[in-house]
Amino acid sequence: MTSSAEKAQLLTPAAVQAAYSLIQPYVHRTPLLTCKTLDTIASTPQTPEALVGTPFEGNHAQALALAASTLNVPAYIVMPSISTPSKIAGTRSHGAEVIFSGSTSVEREAVVAEIQAKTNAILVPPYDDFNIICGQGTTALELEAQYTEQAGTKTLGAVITPIGGGGLNAGVATYFSDKQTKVFGAEPSFQGADDCRRGLLAGKRVEAVSTLTIGDGLRTPVGVLNWEVISNKKKVEGVYAVTEEQIKAAMRLVLERMKVFVEPSAVVGLAVCLFDEDFRRLVEQEGGDQGWDVAIVFSGGNTTVEAIGKLFG
Amino acid sequence: MTSSAEKAQLLTPAAVQAAYSLIQPYVHRTPLLTCKTLDTIASTPQTPEALVGTPFEGNHAQALALAASTLNVPAYIVMPSISTPSKIAGTRSHGAEVIFSGSTSVEREAVVAEIQAKTNAILVPPYDDFNIICGQGTTALELEAQYTEQAGTKTLGAVITPIGGGGLNAGVATYFSDKQTKVFGAEPSFQGADDCRRGLLAGKRVEAVSTLTIGDGLRTPVGVLNWEVISNKKKVEGVYAVTEEQIKAAMRLVLERMKVFVEPSAVVGLAVCLFDEDFRRLVEQEGGDQGWDVAIVFSGGNTTVEAIGKLFG
Repeated sequence: MTSSAEKAQLLTPAAVQAAYSLIQPYVHRTPLLTCKTLDTIASTPQTPEALVGTPFEGNHAQALALAASTLNVPAYIVMPSISTPSKIAGTRSHGAEVIFSGSTSVEREAVVAEIQAKTNAILVPPYDDFNIICGQGTTALELEAQYTEQAGTKTLGAVITPIGGGGLNAGVATYFSDKQTKVFGAEPSFQGADDCRRGLLAGKRVEAVSTLTIGDGLRTPVGVLNWEVISNKKKVEGVYAVTEEQIKAAMRLVLERMKVFVEPSAVVGLAVCLFDEDFRRLVEQEGGDQGWDVAIVFSGGNTTVEAIGKLFG
Repeated sequence: MTSSAEKAQLLTPAAVQAAYSLIQPYVHRTPLLTCKTLDTIASTPQTPEALVGTPFEGNHAQALALAASTLNVPAYIVMPSISTPSKIAGTRSHGAEVIFSGSTSVEREAVVAEIQAKTNAILVPPYDDFNIICGQGTTALELEAQYTEQAGTKTLGAVITPIGGGGLNAGVATYFSDKQTKVFGAEPSFQGADDCRRGLLAGKRVEAVSTLTIGDGLRTPVGVLNWEVISNKKKVEGVYAVTEEQIKAAMRLVLERMKVFVEPSAVVGLAVCLFDEDFRRLVEQEGGDQGWDVAIVFSGGNTTVEAIGKLFG
């Protein structure tokens, strides 16, 4: 059996490229958006000259449902019964069968085992998996292609993504691992949701997290294989954490000014760019005279108008 | 003095092109977005094969503030004191001075006259004006260019825009007046906000409207010059009206599924595509075997998270 460290060796930019070739005919090209207002707010004299964001629509359940419908095979999605209605509806809209479980991993795995016994279905893990990491890394490829279309020969300075289970961040870091673009991660700090950041400080992965942060997509601890990538300083430069109030402030800006509909989890990277003084100083130093363009991955937009009302009511 | 009918003669595609050349270096290129979910909903067997939308960020106050800051001249924006906080904040963020008035046109004009007397400022009318129509018509030009990038040699079948004062619709219709693409308008029906549609039926412009439709950007009657364009069957094919509930349903879809943050006024065109049986039949007939692509202009996104909460709470 291959160890996580060995598997991590195989996570190369070429593996991400291969994943992209596979999925490209079937996926929506997420547009790279820019916003003058956010540029202005982020670009006080010491900060990067431009700020770009990529709204990223997929969550795992919806992606799996879409893949199954593309392949014309049935999909069974196990979701905690407390999932937000929009996530459930989004998954069902692609034709998948949603099966509810309790919210602990033990409860979830029991339901999964039962379905597998009945249907011989293949389990597709949500983040801690080689192929999933490569697939999520295709975000970086789309982002870079669109950045180049807009910015010409300039090199993208940095990318920041949210970290929950860490698949997206590990995938993006894999793709940029042989390039100049630096990769950062962002987490909520509420009730210890910043397990990745704390793990990096302690030199050891944090295995369990119990938090009710509003960034509900980021309540998971970083996976084992993802940790191999993210804890590699050559791949991920640093991980930062933001408060619930900072997440809400960033979310309001994205909704009201950038006009993009995002869930709280999506904007932790933006919140770091706007509010974390350490990150801002780093950008100032690294960017030098030319400045850096920092791309921010927004993942995702699975929320409802009712949830927005509750959050800001 | 030139009559409105004579002025309307000068509203040509070339005039819109000229306006675009002037503003292009200074404006954000609004992306043409597509959404599979909305395509599917709109494309029951009898309806168009694809649906495309353009979020359109400007309202007049913000556009004027931006123009003034680009030219480095002061701007004084007169707004009703009941304006939404996001509109006020958006305008101020571009450096304009906001001056409040009552909400009737008489109250507003008195404040304007006072400012002009004090400052010699030039009055830039919000919609019923040759140059404003050409400027708003540049929406059509951006839309067409991006449609061609995506659709190749196929011709865009139709465009539908909201109608309040009618500048946007008249501008878009002006640009497409020598092309195959047909132009339609959409209004709320609540409390007679469908003044344009009613005027067309009666063969005479409706001069006053008093409505509290949630489409608060569309509470204005169509302007005199705009009426010249919109009532010309060769330029605007038809105007449709939708209910408050239809507007809310369309808005929820755009926010939750398309992930674009829009105000109620923005989605009246989408509501027509989704819910108006007459329009859907027309599209079916006109589109023929090939089907039509219908582009929907979303204008605008001037709302707040609190307003969203109130609307859907």
